[in-house]
Amino acid sequence: MKELQRLAIDPAQWHEGQIQFTADQDRYLRRVLRLEPGDRLVALLPEPIGESRWWLVGLEPTGATALKPLPEPIEPIQTLTLLAALPKGSGFDEVVRQATELGVTEIVPVLSDRTLMQPNGNRLERWRRIAREAAEQSERAAIPTVTEPLAWPAAIAQMVEHDGRFLCVARRSAPHLWQALQLLADSVPNPTSAPTSAQSQSPRAIALAVGPEGGWTPAEVDQALAAGWQVVSLGGRVLRAVTAPLAALAIVNAWGETIAHELAPSEVD
Amino acid sequence: MKELQRLAIDPAQWHEGQIQFTADQDRYLRRVLRLEPGDRLVALLPEPIGESRWWLVGLEPTGATALKPLPEPIEPIQTLTLLAALPKGSGFDEVVRQATELGVTEIVPVLSDRTLMQPNGNRLERWRRIAREAAEQSERAAIPTVTEPLAWPAAIAQMVEHDGRFLCVARRSAPHLWQALQLLADSVPNPTSAPTSAQSQSPRAIALAVGPEGGWTPAEVDQALAAGWQVVSLGGRVLRAVTAPLAALAIVNAWGETIAHELAPSEVD
Repeated sequence: MKELQRLAIDPAQWHEGQIQFTADQDRYLRRVLRLEPGDRLVALLPEPIGESRWWLVGLEPTGATALKPLPEPIEPIQTLTLLAALPKGSGFDEVVRQATELGVTEIVPVLSDRTLMQPNGNRLERWRRIAREAAEQSERAAIPTVTEPLAWPAAIAQMVEHDGRFLCVARRSAPHLWQALQLLADSVPNPTSAPTSAQSQSPRAIALAVGPEGGWTPAEVDQALAAGWQVVSLGGRVLRAVTAPLAALAIVNAWGETIAHELAPSEVD
Repeated sequence: MKELQRLAIDPAQWHEGQIQFTADQDRYLRRVLRLEPGDRLVALLPEPIGESRWWLVGLEPTGATALKPLPEPIEPIQTLTLLAALPKGSGFDEVVRQATELGVTEIVPVLSDRTLMQPNGNRLERWRRIAREAAEQSERAAIPTVTEPLAWPAAIAQMVEHDGRFLCVARRSAPHLWQALQLLADSVPNPTSAPTSAQSQSPRAIALAVGPEGGWTPAEVDQALAAGWQVVSLGGRVLRAVTAPLAALAIVNAWGETIAHELAPSEVD
C-alpha cells in the first residue's frame, strides 16, 4: 500500500489538466515535504472534473500536470455509533456536540444501571437540535441520528450487525482500543452489514459504548460479552463520562484516517 | 518487543507470591483473553511488594504465581505541552479541564493573530483552579502548569527543547498526527531534553499547538516551520477550537499507550 500526499485544490487552479499552486501550497510541497519535479501526489477537487474529484498529478518545476483520475476512496468507517450512558446534569449536550464534530453517525443514549437521569422528550429534541447545528458548523453532509434512550440490553440488541463492537472501560485492565482496531482492520467485514464489502477490506460499522460515572456494572459487562462485544481500554487515565466518548471517537478517527490514506499500488502506477 | 496482558490487583489478593483472582478477573483472563495455565501476564500493584509494583506472573489452574519483579516502565511521554490559541468566550475553561484529564503536563494559552480574547489575571487564576480540580478528580499525581498567556513567537521560543513539536491544522492537507508520531517513535530523543534518555528509545517531550477559530495565519505557520515544527493534520473533520486540542491529546495518549505496553524480550524471559 502506497501513501501519497493529498492536496485540496480549487477548480480555478485547474486549466485543462494543468494545476497552478498557491504560494502557500507551493512552499508547503517543496519546502516542507521536499517534493521535487516528477514526484506524484493526489489532488482533491470539491466537485468532479471529468470523471472524478480525485486526480493523480505529477509535480512540474512550477505547478503540476494531471496524470489520471482516481476512484473515489471508500470511507473506511461508514457507520460509527456511539452508545453513551447518560451522565448527570446537562453533560450530554456537549457529548452530542463534540461527537458530531468527531464524525459520529448515530448516538444512542443509554440508560445503564448506574444512570441517574431519566430524560424526557424535551431533552431528546434538544439533543437532536444540537446534533443538527453541530453538523452544520462542522460542514458535515449528514446529520447524526439521536435515537430514543434505550436500556442497555435493548441497545446491545440493536448493534448485532456492527463489525466492531467495543465496550470501553477505564484504566489498563483490557487491551487498548487502538490495538483492538488494528486487529479488526486485518479481519473480514461482517457480511450482514456490508453487502458491497467486496470493494474494501475495511470494516464498515463500528459501535463504541462508554459507561456512566462509576463505570458499567459486572452484569452489563457480561451482557455485552455474551453478545460478542470486546472490552477495551482508553488508557490509564481516569476520564469523566463526558470526555471518554470523545477520546474514543478521536482514536477511531485517527485509525480510519491511517487506513483511508492508503492507496492500492495499482492505483498510482 | 513483547506485549503481555496487564492486570491491576489488590494487595489483599497477594499471599507470599501466590495471587488469587476475583471472579471477574478470572472470567476475563480465561473466557475473554483465553489464557491458559502456563501463560504469563503482568500484575500491577498499587504499591511495591518487595522491590516493585510490577510483577511477571504465571497463570496456574487457579490464580497465578509471581515469577519475578519487573522494572517500573518509563512513561513514554514525560512532558506533554498543549499550546492552544484562546477561543472566544469561556471555551478555554473546558479545554483546560479536559486536557488535564487527558494527561497534559503544561498548558500554554496562546495569543495568536486571530485571537480576539485579551485575558486578565482573573482568567489565569480560574484556569489554574480548574486544572487543580480536574487533576484531583482524575486522580493525577501532578497538577498541570498553566502559564501566562504568550504571543506565538514567545510560545515557540519556549518549546525548543521538546522532541516532537506539532502544529495541528484542519483537514487533510498535511500528514496525520498519528503518522508523524510513528516516525518520531523511530527517531532518537532530543538529547537536550532528556539527560537519562539512554534508558529509553521513546521521545520524552511533545508539544502540540492548536489554532484559533479560523486557523493559524500563514505568518504563524512560517514562524513554526522556521523553528523546526512539523505541520500535522487531525483528519478530515472540521473541529472547533475547543474540540481540536482534545482530539490531538487523545491521539498522543493512544500512541503513548501502545508504546508503554511493549516490554523488552529480556524482561519477560
